This record gives sequence, C-alpha cells and structure tokens, in this order.
Amino acid sequence: MPDEVNVLYIKAKSWLNASPPRTLTIGFALIIAAGVLLLKLPISVREGHDLSWLDAVFTAASATCVTGLVVVDTGTFFSTFGHWVILALIQVGGLGFMTMSTMFAFFMRRRLSLKERLILQEALNQDSLQGIVKLVRKVIFYALTIEAAGSLLYTLRFLFDMNAGKAIYYGIFHGVSIFNNAGFDLFGDYRSLSDYLSDPFVNLLSIVLIFLGSVGFIVLADLVEYPKRRRLMLHSKVVLTVTAFLFIAGAVLILICEYTNENTLDPLNFGDKFLASMLHSISPRSGGVSTVDVSSMRQATQFLIVGLMFVGASPGSTGGGIKTTTFAVMIVAMLAVIRGKEDIVLFRSRLEKDKVYKAITVTIYSLALLIAATMILSVTENHTFMTVLFEATSAFATAGLSMGLTPELTDAGKAIVIVLMFIGRLGPLTLFYAAGSKPGRTLYRHPEGKILIG
Amino acid sequence: MPDEVNVLYIKAKSWLNASPPRTLTIGFALIIAAGVLLLKLPISVREGHDLSWLDAVFTAASATCVTGLVVVDTGTFFSTFGHWVILALIQVGGLGFMTMSTMFAFFMRRRLSLKERLILQEALNQDSLQGIVKLVRKVIFYALTIEAAGSLLYTLRFLFDMNAGKAIYYGIFHGVSIFNNAGFDLFGDYRSLSDYLSDPFVNLLSIVLIFLGSVGFIVLADLVEYPKRRRLMLHSKVVLTVTAFLFIAGAVLILICEYTNENTLDPLNFGDKFLASMLHSISPRSGGVSTVDVSSMRQATQFLIVGLMFVGASPGSTGGGIKTTTFAVMIVAMLAVIRGKEDIVLFRSRLEKDKVYKAITVTIYSLALLIAATMILSVTENHTFMTVLFEATSAFATAGLSMGLTPELTDAGKAIVIVLMFIGRLGPLTLFYAAGSKPGRTLYRHPEGKILIG
Ligand SMILES: [K+]
Ligand SMILES: [K+]
Repeated sequence: MPDEVNVLYIKAKSWLNASPPRTLTIGFALIIAAGVLLLKLPISVREGHDLSWLDAVFTAASATCVTGLVVVDTGTFFSTFGHWVILALIQVGGLGFMTMSTMFAFFMRRRLSLKERLILQEALNQDSLQGIVKLVRKVIFYALTIEAAGSLLYTLRFLFDMNAGKAIYYGIFHGVSIFNNAGFDLFGDYRSLSDYLSDPFVNLLSIVLIFLGSVGFIVLADLVEYPKRRRLMLHSKVVLTVTAFLFIAGAVLILICEYTNENTLDPLNFGDKFLASMLHSISPRSGGVSTVDVSSMRQATQFLIVGLMFVGASPGSTGGGIKTTTFAVMIVAMLAVIRGKEDIVLFRSRLEKDKVYKAITVTIYSLALLIAATMILSVTENHTFMTVLFEATSAFATAGLSMGLTPELTDAGKAIVIVLMFIGRLGPLTLFYAAGSKPGRTLYRHPEGKILIG
Repeated sequence: MPDEVNVLYIKAKSWLNASPPRTLTIGFALIIAAGVLLLKLPISVREGHDLSWLDAVFTAASATCVTGLVVVDTGTFFSTFGHWVILALIQVGGLGFMTMSTMFAFFMRRRLSLKERLILQEALNQDSLQGIVKLVRKVIFYALTIEAAGSLLYTLRFLFDMNAGKAIYYGIFHGVSIFNNAGFDLFGDYRSLSDYLSDPFVNLLSIVLIFLGSVGFIVLADLVEYPKRRRLMLHSKVVLTVTAFLFIAGAVLILICEYTNENTLDPLNFGDKFLASMLHSISPRSGGVSTVDVSSMRQATQFLIVGLMFVGASPGSTGGGIKTTTFAVMIVAMLAVIRGKEDIVLFRSRLEKDKVYKAITVTIYSLALLIAATMILSVTENHTFMTVLFEATSAFATAGLSMGLTPELTDAGKAIVIVLMFIGRLGPLTLFYAAGSKPGRTLYRHPEGKILIG
C-alpha cells in the first residue's frame, strides 16, 4: 500500500474530524460566495437584465444546494456564461455533497465500530485505509458516467427541436442538472419540462436520472456489485423498497387526484396522464422538474407532494429531505410497537435503538425547522398557507418545486428561503456527525441490522 | 380486605383484558348511539328546528368524544332538554375516558412489571388489589369536586348578566363542559366565550378549568399529595414543565403575531390582549373555547394553534392530541442524539427505549392519520388548505376549535370528521394497550425513568 495514500487518508480524516460541520458550512459558503461574484459579472446576464445582490445570492445558493428554486427565469435571464456558472455550481455542490455525505456515512463517523468497518469493506470491496481515495474516485466516476450518458441522450432528443450546438448545450445542462437533482432548466418562462409533457423519452429519461441521482451512491455501488455478489445490503433493500413504494403510491394518488382536473391531467390521453403522474411522483424526491403547473393541482395533490418532498431522497445522494431510510425506520418502529413486538426488524435484521433515535432526531429536527420557517414565511409573505408550506418544504428538502411563490418573494422571504436551503442542505449531515453510531450490544435475537439514517 | 372487592377487581381486569380496544370502541359507540336517539327526540330541539340523523350523530359524537366541533349552534338550536343530553354525553364521555385511560395507564397494561406496580402503589398510596376501585372513586371524586367548584364560580359570575335560574343552568353547563375540555357552549351564534373577551374572571376561571381537566388525573393526585410527600413523580414534572412551556410560549407567540391584527387583538387594551393570548394558548390543548374568531387570525397564529392542538393534553385526562409526555420524549430524544449522548435523560431519569418507541408510534400514527384525513377533506371540501388542516387537527385532537368549516361541511366531510373524532378519541389509548411497557434491563447509569406516553 503506497505511503502517500496512507498519509492522505490520515490527513483528510483528521481535517474532517476536526470540525466537520464548520468545514462543510465554510466550504459551501465559499462556493456560494464564488458563485455570487461570478453571477454578478455583467457577462453573466443577458442584455437589459440586472441581477440584484440578493437574487445573486439566492441563485448561487439554490444552484450550490441543488435546490432549484429560482427568483429569476434561468433560461431567459442569464447569458450562456451565466448558465455555465450555474451548471458549475450545481456540479460542485451536487457532486461535492454526494461525495462528502458518502464519505461521512462510511468513514468519518465518530465511534465507528470495527464490525461496521468490516461490513463497509465487504460492501465496497476495498481496503479501509486506501478506501477514502478509492471511494471518492468511484463516486466521481459513477456520477460523471451517468451524467455523460444522460447528457448524450438528452442531446439526441433535443436535436429534433433545435440546432446541434444548442442541442448539445441543452443536453449537457439538463443531463447534469437533472442527475444532480438540481431542478434548474433552460426552457424559459419558469416552465421547466412542460414542453415535453407528452414526450415519453424525455419523461422516462428524466425519471431514471432523478432516480439514479437520488438513490445514493451506496445503493448504486451495491447494484453494480449485485451480479457478482448475488445479494444486496440491508441499506440498499430498504432504500429500493421505500423508493419503489413512494414512486408507485405517489403516481397512483396523483393520477387519481388530478384525473379530472382540467388545468392539469384532464386534457391528456391516458398514457400522458400516467407519464405526468410518474414524473410528478419522483420529481419531489428531489428532482424539482415538472411538466404541469403544480399551483394548478388540487390541494390534496399539493399536500401529497409536500409529503413526498419532506421524505426526499436517500443517504449519500444529491437529494435532500429526511431520507427514505429515516422514513422506513419510523414506520417500521411504529408497526413493531403497535404489534407489541419487542424488536424492530427490517428485512430480518434487528435495528438497534441508536438508529431509531437518529431517525426521530432527523424527523423532529426537520419538522421543527419546517414549522418555524413556515410560520415566519406566513408572516412575511401574503400568500395562501399551502403556497408558503410548499415553498418552505421545497427549500428545506432541496426539492425545487414551487407553486409560483419564489419570484414573488419579499426580500425577507428570499433571505429566509436562502437560509432554509442552506440549513436544509447541511442540516442532517452535520447533525449526523454528532450522532455517530455506537457498537451494538451482543444480545442477539435477529442479527443486528446496519442501515444509514439521513 | 373484603372479598367482593377482590372478585370485582379480577372480573374487571379479565373483562378489560379480554379485548380493551373492542370494549372501548363498543362502549363509546353505544353512548353515542344513545345520544343520537335522545337528540333525535322532538323535545331535544327548539321549535322550528329539525336535526338530521347525520347531524345528530355528529353532535353526539362530538359531545361524547368531548371534541366540541358543532354543525348546529348548540345554544340556539337545542332545547334545554337537548342541552342536558349533550351535557350528559360530555360527562359520561369525558369522565369515562379519564377514568378508563387512568385505569389502563396504571393497571391494565400487558406485561406490567412488579417494579412498575410498586411505583404506582407508592405514587397513589394504595393497595394494588383494592386499587382499581379506589382509583375510580378518586378520579370521579376529583372531577366532580372541580366541576362543582367551577360551576359555582361561573354561576356567581353569570348572576350579573342573567336571572338566577339561567345563571345556575349556564354555570353548571359551562363548568362541566369546560373542565371536561368539551368546548361546547350555550352562548349562541357559534360565538363561544367571545362575550367575555375582556372579562378576567371568566378567562382565568376557564384557563384554570381547562388546565385541571387536561393535565390528567395522575398529576392532580400527585399535586394533592405534594404537601405530604414533598416530591413529584417524574411523570408530573414532565407534564407540568411541558404544559407551562407550551402555555407561555404559545401566549407570547399569539400576542406577537396578533398584536396588530385589527380583526383580533388590535382593538383591545394590553391587559385584554394578554388575557386573550393566554386563553387561546391553552384552549387548543384541548379546551376548545375561544373569545376571538380564529378564522380572523393570521396564518402564522393558526398554524401555531394547529401545532398546539396536535400536542394536546396530558395522559389520563379528558383531552386529546399526542400528549405532552410524547412531545417531551421526542424533543429530549432529539437533543440527546444531537449532543451525542448515549442515554436519553429527563429530570435525571433515563428513559428506556420502549418509551421512546411508543412516543414515535403515537406521533407517526397521529401524523399519518392527520395527513390522510386532511388529504381526503381537501378533496371533499372546497375550502383553503389551512381551514381543512385546522378542522382535521381539531377533530383528531378532540380540540374543538374551528375556522368556521364545521357547519359548512359536506355530508362526506361530516362523516370523515365523525370518524376522525372517534379514532382520535380512542386511538392512542387502544394503541397503547398493545404497546404495554416491558420491564427494563438492569444496566443502570441513571435510574430508569417511568413516564406515561399518550
Ligand atoms: K432539487
Ligand atoms: K375539546
């Protein structure tokens, strides 16, 4: 094993261990600051447009936190240079977060037990000292590969609608933006993917990219290893089950609730209704693109989307929210108690109490933050409660969908949403650092289940 | 010890143990059915009024579940006979539930450990076999004493506004209704206590009665014993701390949010503003009376009240919601995890994981039910999301406040609210039966804390 890798690992570990919340916060703040300066350059905006400092901070924060809420229309307001700045922020923010959260989840936890390390080594099939470098390389390799494939496929589709230069440019932008679950688009007039409402290719490609970006690196790696190992980690099983459940249940409920809504699905044929339902079921978790106007949806659907945004993506991904595993642990804990079971069991694995406590922590912390932000925004913004709740949840869960409030936000409202995007992005991760898992006791009924929360 | 008490105890225990959820459900359903039949009698309503079957079920369910949501105006719609029927339903439902929930909490749990029994005996200072009879007597004695005092004080106040007969009648009705946190009133036009907006006597008396009714028998008994024992049970400390915190924080936030609202507090002098803020801080948990129109409040205040209703009252009381202790356990668990502590400690007592799991169960179960009900009501009712969320929370938490939706509910909406009141009333209790506490392991750091959830 080369010595320099060893040294790098120890240095990185001690640097990150020093104060990861501070490191992360400063890191993200610096990226946003750089983005603000670049976006404030006159060449970043189209002629006749002027970006205020607050809107520059908002846009840079939204891109870096891969949220996708926009106060100005990305496509028509910014120049091509501005678009590349935004895309760079998305790439650095999204990929950076994916790498960091995967690293934290796997290597950086305080009190990581030997047993956990062994499980991780087995799962990632790599040596623990060299692990961190390999892991980062692997995450970046996966992300770039998927982005390249996505961009190529979008480009091929866009060639039918525009010249080759623009098709490539749009292909790359949307491939990167949608894989990173950033929610930014270039189509103008805040209309996201609505031009492709009835296009199965764009819809399905977007659904797959959002899925690959939000499912988390750990699951991707596990799926790649599956043909060889013929089994999945508990973590992957939980993530995939919850993702499938929420996707299907969400799509069915959206289809039912919007079927006769003349402002959304009613004018479409059944196939297109189904396509739109699927897209709007996965997009809140946390892709942020849409093909119909969410503000025209029925209240029940909007509330469902708020719920889907709150649950969000999976650990080690670019997405936000409380995460699928947190959701699963809370539900399974509830069912176990109702049935009077002493152990909380997921896929024949017993969950130790620290996992359950973590799940509570993320959920209650997120709820408290969301409730507080919604209350404050209710005071600063003169809009319906649902509009405000939707916006706050979207910002906190880095989802990026909006009922149209974002461009109309007051300055105070913009400041609150910026803070919410920032905290929402860093929150669970920095929380989790403090909440590292402890070695379980050796009192086995089922074998202990290892699962990452948040 | 007399033999018949022994036999009674064993019989009662085996009857309740057989299937308490079924017993409770059937018991409440029978009381409601009796109420419906009585309310449908022509002598129950004033001349010229006709009560539909659905409205009779709604009213009987609301009274029996001590919720206080009303589809027809209690004061002007029903005759004096109808008022006594409603009051009887409140007394039987409220006191019955208080007795049952106290009994369940103390004696009826599956796997109740010897240590827990000893703690309970110490706390209640009574023998465990005779306990159940004494306990029921004690609960009823406390309730009737407080109701008598409350009724007398209301009567004395109402003598200034009406003739003696009506003052006594109104005094008894409101003394019983408000202690039972039932939220029913006789003042007409759905205006609750708004005639007494600026009356310190009625406001403070109502606040005290709501507090005594919602704090739970266990805490009342503990407080009565306090001068002798000079210490409080953990349960009482938690309940009183959370109650005080929510009362003060709620009042301050309401005062701030509504201070300049010309439809609520703005026209009042500071003393009256303060009085109204206090009443509307405690009333959601879960008294259900009001002196200003909650539908005129700002959205932030309404959302705060939704939160207060959701938390609700304390175990072993007439009130609903997830309960103060559940709220406390969730918050303390979150803080412990964020601080990286291994144990969850409340007042120097460690909480075993089954308590924490129960708290999750109640919270997630309640949230899930509330979200589902809100979604369905969003479809059936053509009202703003806040109005619907407020109504659903109020019904589920048996709070009884309304933004005015109740009398305008569609038939489907009424049916949903009836089910929600019923499930909300029985839910946590029947859940808890299945979720009886288990003896803790003997691995002490702090002494184990005993606290009732839900
Ligand atoms: K997003
Ligand atoms: K009530």
